[in-house]
Amino acid sequence: MCTSVWGNEMEKKATNVVWHESHVARVDREELLKQKGCTVWFTGLPSSGKSTIAFTLEHELIRLGYLAYVLDGDNIRHGLNRNLGFSAEDREENIRRIGEVSKLFADAGLVCLTSFISPYRADRDRARRMHEDAGLPFMEIHVSTPVSTCMERDPKGLYRKALNGEIKGFTGVDDPYEAPLHPELEFLTIDQSPGLIAHTILQELYGRGILTEKSGDL
Amino acid sequence: MCTSVWGNEMEKKATNVVWHESHVARVDREELLKQKGCTVWFTGLPSSGKSTIAFTLEHELIRLGYLAYVLDGDNIRHGLNRNLGFSAEDREENIRRIGEVSKLFADAGLVCLTSFISPYRADRDRARRMHEDAGLPFMEIHVSTPVSTCMERDPKGLYRKALNGEIKGFTGVDDPYEAPLHPELEFLTIDQSPGLIAHTILQELYGRGILTEKSGDL
Repeated sequence: MCTSVWGNEMEKKATNVVWHESHVARVDREELLKQKGCTVWFTGLPSSGKSTIAFTLEHELIRLGYLAYVLDGDNIRHGLNRNLGFSAEDREENIRRIGEVSKLFADAGLVCLTSFISPYRADRDRARRMHEDAGLPFMEIHVSTPVSTCMERDPKGLYRKALNGEIKGFTGVDDPYEAPLHPELEFLTIDQSPGLIAHTILQELYGRGILTEKSGDL
Repeated sequence: MCTSVWGNEMEKKATNVVWHESHVARVDREELLKQKGCTVWFTGLPSSGKSTIAFTLEHELIRLGYLAYVLDGDNIRHGLNRNLGFSAEDREENIRRIGEVSKLFADAGLVCLTSFISPYRADRDRARRMHEDAGLPFMEIHVSTPVSTCMERDPKGLYRKALNGEIKGFTGVDDPYEAPLHPELEFLTIDQSPGLIAHTILQELYGRGILTEKSGDL
């Protein structure tokens, strides 16, 4: 057991601390961070550009002094969801867990950005509902790059494999993508200025009072 | 699709934004928050006082301007882990998921406090390893209140039910608790000043360079 030597000054300060039996209030966290916790949920076909937009927004938010964090295949599929496959049941559980974790991040005060194909409307709507039921803002952003463009890009050669039948159940080839009916934002392509896209989303975050303008932001 | 009207000023700023293809570097996040991400893992018998200490520390950290977040039964068992029961397999999966989520929070730059019985050494060691492998600090704190004291407290009457046989597999009654062999800190009881306990942990966080002293902290 580690013990520590206590100076008089420290003991005096320490006496001001009282026991707490519950979480810090969300408003105290917002006050500290000068922002509201929320989830910005990117959805779209493989290679549509979701992650590129999410990472660009994350960098821009951090640069402006806001705390953001991207959940993506990289930090989720190889960690929390490493025990899930690609069956219908596992895909649903995959998105359920991502919804729950993004809700925890939003509750902690962060702008949580999720970047997953999340092809099924019901799964995304469930994630939205669990946020809204907890009073946490949820923004769905559809990166609706046409499948032909996604196939041309295909940086990992996955569309090619799916078209050759080497991969089964690939969204956009032999598995459906259910487009959002009422996304908060939609980008038809990422073939435009990254600044325009990032700032369109930032404007939405300011407009909803999630970010409070700091001097020099825009 | 929402579009926005762009002023000249905004367009000019927007041109500085470039595409990013990966996460914000941990160091940039640390710079913003003036702290390092880490996980402080509380373990101990039911009613040992883990959550009381975790919440008290969370309040104290926020008051001092540091970002912390408690994962506990309240926000995990009713959310992410709602589909887990209390079988040996599910208990292991429960702690595995908590380990993964706390690692995400630490990676995002927060001081993540976890408050779970987490009775098995192997499960806790796995959580530690997954942090250390990612270069993230992990502190195990054993709240080692004797079982007799925990039974006297028993705020939810769970020990009573377990002793009556109404609950099976209750840690400390008919399920084992494996005490940590080398916890970073141990508190033999919470029957002492909350300030002393909170500040002992804070000192450890300062000592490890996780928190950088801000003026007026201690």
